[in-house]
Amino acid sequence: MSENSAAPVVILVRPQLAENIGTTARAMMNCGLSELRLVAPRDKFPSEKAVAASAGADEILANAKLYPYLPLAVADLQRIYAMTARNRDMPHRVIDARQAGAELRNRIGQGQSCGILFGPERSGLTNDDLTMADTMITVPLNPEHSSLNLAQAVLVLGYEWAHLVFGNQPQPVPEGETAPASKEELVNLFEHLERELIECGFLRNEAMRPTMIRNIRTMLQRGTLTEQEVRTFHGIISGLAQGRPGRSKPEPGTE
Amino acid sequence: MSENSAAPVVILVRPQLAENIGTTARAMMNCGLSELRLVAPRDKFPSEKAVAASAGADEILANAKLYPYLPLAVADLQRIYAMTARNRDMPHRVIDARQAGAELRNRIGQGQSCGILFGPERSGLTNDDLTMADTMITVPLNPEHSSLNLAQAVLVLGYEWAHLVFGNQPQPVPEGETAPASKEELVNLFEHLERELIECGFLRNEAMRPTMIRNIRTMLQRGTLTEQEVRTFHGIISGLAQGRPGRSKPEPGTE
Repeated sequence: MSENSAAPVVILVRPQLAENIGTTARAMMNCGLSELRLVAPRDKFPSEKAVAASAGADEILANAKLYPYLPLAVADLQRIYAMTARNRDMPHRVIDARQAGAELRNRIGQGQSCGILFGPERSGLTNDDLTMADTMITVPLNPEHSSLNLAQAVLVLGYEWAHLVFGNQPQPVPEGETAPASKEELVNLFEHLERELIECGFLRNEAMRPTMIRNIRTMLQRGTLTEQEVRTFHGIISGLAQGRPGRSKPEPGTE
Repeated sequence: MSENSAAPVVILVRPQLAENIGTTARAMMNCGLSELRLVAPRDKFPSEKAVAASAGADEILANAKLYPYLPLAVADLQRIYAMTARNRDMPHRVIDARQAGAELRNRIGQGQSCGILFGPERSGLTNDDLTMADTMITVPLNPEHSSLNLAQAVLVLGYEWAHLVFGNQPQPVPEGETAPASKEELVNLFEHLERELIECGFLRNEAMRPTMIRNIRTMLQRGTLTEQEVRTFHGIISGLAQGRPGRSKPEPGTE
């Protein structure tokens, strides 16, 4: 069982560029993944280039483990997934990244240790590599241009993981000055507006008036006005009304 | 109405690095997005650096439009979304990237033209920029490290779009030699294995035999063996059995 079995392990198989190891670490940090394993990287590692590209994910790089061969890198893991853009003839089980996120969450929740293989930048995973994997993960993308950069492939899978771990948390509700207006405040606003619209002649057609008022109210309701916005709107109506020729007194009750 | 209204328009607001414009174009191409607008980019544009970083998405860069101010860049669009990592006090409607994908698909399906704003690398969108947006989009990520690289923010949104456009397409079913084995083929395999296991003594405990057979069958069923794999398995069983001392004839019917 892996030490950090609370999240999937990211395994880069023969990555070519140190920079991509760094951007992978950044994507992992964004998504709450922490355990990185490298199988026979081409550029030397540890690497300053990787650290520079990691935008602060140094700890993930410092804790990354190096392996000469893939079988050693997965030896302690129970479930291995492999990201691949290509459709292959091999009879592997294939799921998409979203299904993979849910399955990883489920299996890791049951205490299983899971890893995801990502192949070299140019060539991808070999069929030999894939014999280590239980399941292949594809990403539904533009079929004519489905090849993702290494860190972006990690990000897509990590995003699906993060969506389950960090998503669905309560959205901070706007508070204080920006709380949604109550219906009473809205009705006051509507009536203020309608009084002024009647007075200025906009609603002079009495037969059409109820329909026009309904349409205006519907339009204003749709925006979910805040208390502050309602106050501002009152001010606008008063301001416009008072600017008309022959008016000079402020409208009562609207500052 | 925008020309390419069949997909959302990507609008980079005051992007700093030409390289990030290039990687954005690549992510757009991966996700089936084609229309890119740039508001006052800091590095000069068009740019060779952008082309080099775009990994073949030159056409998106060649067709990108430049605008001096954000209002000009969104003038012809009907719905504007803004990607932001930060929670702000402004009373905008906030949805997550997944909801945004579904909403964009829906609105674009109804013929509405939609754009998504992405802010400058360091500072993000200003509150003034956000007055142009109907809806803010957040991405559920590690709350301590939620800042995505520009192209990766575009990728997450684009991925949600692509999932709806390119996802749910029928998975190519393994064919011919690799078709899933029929149940009859499986039962033949089980019986072959069990005959040999009885003969070799592995199933000699007759009281335990039914349970052991059930466990073995369950284990082998779970892997969804293909026809080819069943044939291979027969060969393995026969091969092992024939190698035992005192055996030399091939098992009938298993090559």
